[in-house]
This record gives sequence, structure tokens and C-alpha cells, in this order.
Amino acid sequence: MPAPAVTPIRRALISVSDKTGLIELGRRLAAAKVELLSTGGSAKALRDAGVPVKDVSDVTGFPEIMDGRVKTLHPKVHGGLLGRRGTDDAVMAELGIAPIDLLVLNLYPFEATVAKPDCTLEQAIENIDIGGPAMLRSAAKNWSDVGVLTSPDQYEEALAEVEQHGGLSRSTRFKFAVAAFNNVSSYDGAISDYLSGLQLNDTQDAIAGHDAFSGQANGRFVKLMDLRYGENPHQQAAFYRDLYPAPGTLATFRQLQGKELSFNNIADSDAAWECVRSFIKPACVIVKHANPCGVAVSLDGIGRAYDLAYQTDPTSAFGGIIAFNREVDAGTARAIVERQFVEVVLAPGYADDALKAFAKKTNVRVLVIPPPAGGDLSQAHPGNDCRRVGSGLLIQTADRGMVTAEDLKIVTRRAPTEAEISDLIFAWKVAKYVKSNAIVYARDRQTIGIGAGQMSRVYSARIAGIKAADEKLEVRGSVMASDAFFPFRDGIDAAAAAGIRAVIQPGGSMRDAEVIAAADEHDMAMVFTGMRHFRH
Amino acid sequence: MPAPAVTPIRRALISVSDKTGLIELGRRLAAAKVELLSTGGSAKALRDAGVPVKDVSDVTGFPEIMDGRVKTLHPKVHGGLLGRRGTDDAVMAELGIAPIDLLVLNLYPFEATVAKPDCTLEQAIENIDIGGPAMLRSAAKNWSDVGVLTSPDQYEEALAEVEQHGGLSRSTRFKFAVAAFNNVSSYDGAISDYLSGLQLNDTQDAIAGHDAFSGQANGRFVKLMDLRYGENPHQQAAFYRDLYPAPGTLATFRQLQGKELSFNNIADSDAAWECVRSFIKPACVIVKHANPCGVAVSLDGIGRAYDLAYQTDPTSAFGGIIAFNREVDAGTARAIVERQFVEVVLAPGYADDALKAFAKKTNVRVLVIPPPAGGDLSQAHPGNDCRRVGSGLLIQTADRGMVTAEDLKIVTRRAPTEAEISDLIFAWKVAKYVKSNAIVYARDRQTIGIGAGQMSRVYSARIAGIKAADEKLEVRGSVMASDAFFPFRDGIDAAAAAGIRAVIQPGGSMRDAEVIAAADEHDMAMVFTGMRHFRH
Repeated sequence: MPAPAVTPIRRALISVSDKTGLIELGRRLAAAKVELLSTGGSAKALRDAGVPVKDVSDVTGFPEIMDGRVKTLHPKVHGGLLGRRGTDDAVMAELGIAPIDLLVLNLYPFEATVAKPDCTLEQAIENIDIGGPAMLRSAAKNWSDVGVLTSPDQYEEALAEVEQHGGLSRSTRFKFAVAAFNNVSSYDGAISDYLSGLQLNDTQDAIAGHDAFSGQANGRFVKLMDLRYGENPHQQAAFYRDLYPAPGTLATFRQLQGKELSFNNIADSDAAWECVRSFIKPACVIVKHANPCGVAVSLDGIGRAYDLAYQTDPTSAFGGIIAFNREVDAGTARAIVERQFVEVVLAPGYADDALKAFAKKTNVRVLVIPPPAGGDLSQAHPGNDCRRVGSGLLIQTADRGMVTAEDLKIVTRRAPTEAEISDLIFAWKVAKYVKSNAIVYARDRQTIGIGAGQMSRVYSARIAGIKAADEKLEVRGSVMASDAFFPFRDGIDAAAAAGIRAVIQPGGSMRDAEVIAAADEHDMAMVFTGMRHFRH
Repeated sequence: MPAPAVTPIRRALISVSDKTGLIELGRRLAAAKVELLSTGGSAKALRDAGVPVKDVSDVTGFPEIMDGRVKTLHPKVHGGLLGRRGTDDAVMAELGIAPIDLLVLNLYPFEATVAKPDCTLEQAIENIDIGGPAMLRSAAKNWSDVGVLTSPDQYEEALAEVEQHGGLSRSTRFKFAVAAFNNVSSYDGAISDYLSGLQLNDTQDAIAGHDAFSGQANGRFVKLMDLRYGENPHQQAAFYRDLYPAPGTLATFRQLQGKELSFNNIADSDAAWECVRSFIKPACVIVKHANPCGVAVSLDGIGRAYDLAYQTDPTSAFGGIIAFNREVDAGTARAIVERQFVEVVLAPGYADDALKAFAKKTNVRVLVIPPPAGGDLSQAHPGNDCRRVGSGLLIQTADRGMVTAEDLKIVTRRAPTEAEISDLIFAWKVAKYVKSNAIVYARDRQTIGIGAGQMSRVYSARIAGIKAADEKLEVRGSVMASDAFFPFRDGIDAAAAAGIRAVIQPGGSMRDAEVIAAADEHDMAMVFTGMRHFRH
């Protein structure tokens, strides 16, 4: 038997942690002749505002005990939520269980409790709500007859239906029930994440420590969009966002114009965005097939940075993803659309005239990523990284390592000049975002050749040289960055022959002495970072 | 005040879906003078076995109603579980709430319910347990005083403590409480995954469809091990396994010997394993830096396949990951350890003598991955793939696409010979696992040159050629696979000049006609797969 389209709402139970909109909700429900039950702070707030409300303990005939641990875990509440209208009416009447047609309940985020740096285990445990999730689950299970609201965002839609039809429609009830199960899952996931990463001390009140990675990892991802297909047309895909996304990261994007984003657009956009926001000065990064194919920094602004980045590899830049760490001006936007086919443009903002320029190419996807509070894009925290392997998941902290000039250890007789240091740091930042093995040639904060994704380092170096030569870019006077150490001196010898004057690399090879000696022979400057940047 | 090391267990509530070990548990608890409460099927099973048990409804004084929807949601149950011993004793005594010191409860897996192909929404909803998770959460919250068992695996440990000490120790209670919260999180995650992907029909009983990707994705990963570090030494990392891992996939591995696995070991092992298990005949895949650097198939067995795979690129094979799709024999094991430094060996099995050979190099990590039921490795299903992007997650179905000779569309005047077809299919399978852009040269089911990870296809082709030349492998007579279409004829012209005789590629370029004409001019055979294999 199909459920009636609208189930009437005559009685509601309200128990909210977030009191936003509570009073208006109570008033309008009361005006719609809905009897209100409530507990604790919600009941007090409603009463103080003059909204008539009945205590749950009056319904159960059972006192609220154990400092609130047990107040709603009672058959008169759960029977009222779970009773199947039409099927259980007799037993409900017999046992004095009155139907509860609407539950309004939200939970205090467990993440917020345990985020407090001095949160004790006892406080964390005491904050675990037992009655709330139980009621949410009862109401959501009985969605055929009962409505459940878990967020103030839902109040207006629900009130409009109640005021117009006296109840909630079937599709609305289902949608809200799903939201409630999602909410409970997120809540329990947060508890499991926290507790399963806890190291217990010998005494009850103390936490000995937290594991960097909890025993069970409960991802909580909210779908932003289905994608037309995955990495390839025969794969299906969707794009999700963290329940609590970090400001300044890709998933907080807004699309201002252009075609639907594809799986590869999003993956490449992330690589471009992470790379470009690592620069402090105006920068442009062009990404193709997950690798930067052109990067530049220019004090003359992002327009010039784009010109330079484009020069590195115009062939690969065709159909690429272009990211900026500054608002895009009209001139830069015009230069892009006039010069090349571009899939996606990303920036923290756009001048109005820039958007007009892009509007002439309606297919171009233009994304804005609002910077985090304070405006410093380089401080956005992307959260943990993960890598899927067959029926498993590798989770790691994001590669937030970055070196400054002060961190560099000069290992050659000749120290790098100031200009070389500036180029070395630039090349190093680029190498961090090039797939391993990575070799980057750079001069005047422009990439001159990028060797990516090789199974042995010497081929990456060869490719960087070949690319520079193919584009007729001058290697002489350039610097070289390597994402990992040189195992032999041959890489240095080859670089010197090509005209490389300075090298940045982690160091740490068994043959460092031999590699340094090679650099000295060629009067090259070499610095060690002590930090590797594999990226596969 | 620290909790006493052991809390006494005098009263237990048992309600299990999985009846494994139930009777013995009941008998031994009863023998330890523990009073047993139970419900439904568990109570009947215990009673039938002569174990004295009391019905929960006798405790609550409230009947079981609504076909079992409401039976334990009662303050006498939850007060018994949640009451703080020492703090709430007076109110418990006053209200006649007897303490429940142990909860034994497991939930019927929601995944199993909805996995049934004809499961209706009503059945799914009816299977959502409300009382069980509520009790688990109450008992686990009150872990200071109460024990909670969620799996028969835990019975023996718990019984041993009860029989020896009359109760459970603090560390055991905490461990089991964490397991209970993990269990509830997984249960609610499964419900959220299912319901948030459901399309509702106009009538209550029908499901209109399931989204390929649910509205909320609740990952449920169990930590297998902490890793020494992540992709780089300054990153922390851990390795997790799906709650229900698929047989035959990497995460089901057992390590037989060798050093601790690293993050990069695991990532590379997955690439090697996924590639090698795509071959039906004896095969060997060597991976370095996430790319195959040598692959071969040989009817003479995996020893010969290893020799051939090694020849492709001995430099890169140094320190590589070597995977086989057959049991490893002693000769092959000896050949490996005598010839090269190897990080990881993977196979579905090892001869005893092979293990003895590996034992001489104690650092070598030897992993066995048990094949799935039926033994066909190529049928293992790795589940969905995912890719982390800043505060977001791309989820896609795994790339399970595969072509056979019958799927190939011959587009040139000359059809490939039988030997060429065999090599084309071989090269195509390899290209699928090479990072894009990918070009693979192969002859006699041996890789001759692999061009990986380039931002433009023409460079991948050049690298494949350079590598073949460097290793003095004969390109003449080889075939070429490209993971995506050739945008221009230049790639074909260059391949012909190098001696390539046949080409496999998806087709689909605007300039296919021009590309086909080029192949015809060179008397090459070319086949289209109609399927692309980007892998970034």
C-alpha cells in the first residue's frame, strides 16, 4: 500500500544543540496546531519565548536521570517515533503511546568536542550522545510516517509544507530521513576515528597519546556532483567533498562559467592549484596530464608569468589547466583565450573585465577558489592525502614540506649567487609537483625544461634537456632541481655539459662525495635541502 | 578516581545475530554465576541448550511490541548499561534499575541485506536495527563499568578474564568499547551509503534505481599497520584495508619474509600486481616509481618471463618490485636474488625451495596474495578507485576494461598477423598500467621500450625509442601500443622509421583518416580498441 503523499504532523519532539531558528520553528509549529515536546535547553528556550511546550519526562512518566544520560530512551518516545501508523495503532493506544510525527534534533559535533586541545577522555566520552542518535535513527527508519529534521537549513522547507498541507510530503520525508542517517553516520564515524586512535593511560582520566592514524578510518564525503565519466569513458565517477573542507583548497571551488568539469579536469586542477599556491609572488602554473608543463613567477604580474609559463612547452600547454595565485586581470584573460585552447582556469578571483573576456569562449571552465581567512593561499591545509590500492588505502599526511633559502646547505666550493638561490628555490617548488622522478631546469624563475615520470633519474634529466632544446630555450645559466638525490655523478656531468650552473637536490646518496666533487670540477654551485619530494 | 582494574560481571545481556559460540558463552557465563538476560532468537537458543536465561521484557515490565521494533529501548535496560557505578547507585536502586555489566550483541550486516538483488526498500528499512546500536553505544560509552562484545572472536578472551578475575580488566573493556564504536560506525556507514544512493519511486514499495555513487560516501577502513613514513620521510603514513577486502587483491597479502613494507613499496606493489594479474599466461612485471619498467609473458614459464622483463631496462629494474601470476619456483627465486637488488616480490604462491632461496636475502620482502576462489587471479575485483584532491575525493569505478582479439577493429589495408595480434594485445595490457601518456613497444610478448608519464604523446614515443636503443633491443618487427589516440600522423611516421610493424590504439581522433593513411603508406597494420586507458 503506497504511503499517503502527506502525513499529518500533530506532535513534534524538539531537542537541538544548534538553537538557530529554534524559536521561529517552535512558534510556527505551535501556530500550525502542532503539540510540542522537548527536553533541557530546547524546552527552556522555547518556554522563555512563550512557546507552549511539554516535557518529555511528562510523556514517559519516567524522570530524567544520571545527569541526562537517560531521558528519552523510553518506549513511549521510541514507540511514538517507530509505531507504524495503521499497523500499530491498537498497541499504541493500549500502552498509552502517543504518535510523534516530527523529530527536530541536531547533535553537537563530536569533532568540535575533541578538537579542544585539553579535551580529556572523560569529557569526550561524556559528550557522546546516546539518546539523540537513537531517536534520529527511530524517526528516520519510520520515514513513511514520521518527519525528521537535523539541521536549521531544513526548517523553512518543512514549515512551508506543514503550513500549506498540514504535514510533510513523501519525497521530503525520505530526503530528510536520508540526511538523518548521513548525519548519524558522520557522528559515529567521528567517534570511531577519535577513540580508535587513542592510546589509553594507566589511569582513567589521562590520555597517553593519539595515534597519527586511527585504528579505523571512517571517511565522510559528501557528493558534489556526478561526473560524465571517470579517468576513461568506460569508467563511472563522482566528485566528493570532505564533510568539513579546508578553505582555500580545490574542493571549495565555485564554477563561474564553462562546460561540466571532467574527472581529469579536477585531478589536474588540483595539481595546478597546489603548485601555484606554493608561490608567494605572482605565479602561473600550466598542467597537462597531471604534471606542470610550464611554471613561472614574475614581479611584473601574472600576465607576464603566464607568458613565460606558456613558453616552456606550448605543445603541452594546448588543452591544459592554467592556475594563478592572484586575481586574473582582463589582459591576462584575453591573452589566454586568444592564444590557446584551455580546459580550466583557476584563480582566487577575477576582474569583471577578465570574466567578460572568458565569456567569449563559453566552453572554458573558469573556477574561483576563495582564499582562506587572512588571504594567504599558501597556508590552506589540504588535509591528509590518500592513495587507493587493491581493496586497501594508503593514508599519509600531505606533503607540506617546504624549504627556504635559510634551510639550504651549500656543499660545493662555489656558493650560489643570490639570483641562483632565487631560481633554485623556484625550481625546487616546481619539482615538488612534478611526478617522480622529476628534474626541472629553470632560469629567471621560468621553467626551461621539465623531465617527469621516469623510472630512472637519468632519463628525466635527458628529457628536460631535450625539451629545452626543442623549444629553443637557453639552458646555459640555468639551475637544476632534482626531487631526490643523484645516485651517481653522471647526472651532474650531463647537466654541466648542458650549461647548468647550480643544482638543488636533497642529498643523502652513498656517493654524495663523488657527486659534490663533480659539481666542484664544473665550478657549479650545489645545495642540499635534506628533504625529498617524491610524488608518484 | 581511577577505575578499578577489573569490574565485576554479575549480569549480562545477550542478543546476537551471529550465533557462533553462543551456547558455550552462555554456559560459561552461567557457570561463572553471571545472570543472563536475552531476547528473541538468542534467548530461545540458550534456553534450548539448557542455559538459564531471563527475558528482557521481564526486566522492563514492558512488552515487546511492533514486531520487535521496540523491546530494549527502555530506561531499565539503558539505565542498567549507562548507570555510573558509585555515582548513580541510589537512583538505580530507587527506580529498580539493575546494573547490566556485560553486553554481548552483534548486528546482522546491513551490507548483506541490501546485497540481495531483489531487496526492496521496505526490507532494507525493516532490517535497520534501532535497539541494537543504541545498546552498543550505551555499553561502550559506559566502558568504565561495562563490558561489550560485538564479535564471537572476542568471547574467549573475555571468558578467560571473567573466569579468572570475575570480570574484565580496564584495558580489555576499553579495547572492546572501541571495537563497538567502530562496529556501530561501520553499520551506520553502510546504511548511509545505501540510502543516500537510492532513487525513490512514486510508490512506497518500489526503488526507482540506485545511483552509481551515493550522496554520502562513508569509507570504512581498518588499519593494517603504521608505516615508518609516507611517500617521503617527512610525511607520516599508515596502510588500511577495506572492511570487506576482495580476495585476490593486494590488501589481502601475507608477508612471508623481509623488511617492513614502505609506503612506496605498497603503492608500487599494487601497480605490479594489478598489471601481472591481467595476464592469463605465465607473466612477470617489474615496477619502478609506479610504472612497469619491464613486462614479459612466456609459455616457458615465469623464469623465462622474468629474464625477458629484466632485459627491458636493467637499470630501472634495480631496486624494483617484481610480480608474478604463478607460483614462484626455486630457479626463478635464485635468478632474482643472484642478479639484482629487489625490494618486493609478489606472487600467488611459492615453492618451498623458492622461499629458501629468498631466505638468503633477509631484506627482500616476499608477499603472497592468495588467489580468489576458483583461482583465476584476473577475476579479482579491486573495488572502486579513488583519488584525493584538496579537501575532496574523486571516486571512480576501477578500470576493468579489457579487449580481446575479437574486439579489435582493423583499420589498415594490411591486417595484423597472428603473432602481431598476440603482441598487440600484450602491449595494450602493459600500456594500461603505464602512466599517461603511455607508449609501449613490444615484440614476442616482451616489452622493448616503455615511454611513460609525458605531457605530450610524441615525447613518450621518443622515450620508448631511446630506451630500446640504449638497451640495444631490436625495435624492427615490434608493435606499438598507445594508451590514447594519436592526434597527428607524426607518431606513426616516427614509429615506422624505428621499425614498428603494427599499432594498437583507441582511435577516435579527428585526424584518424590521416593517421590510418600514414600506417597504410608504411604497410603497417593498425587496430583500434575503441577504449582508452589513461592512468595518471
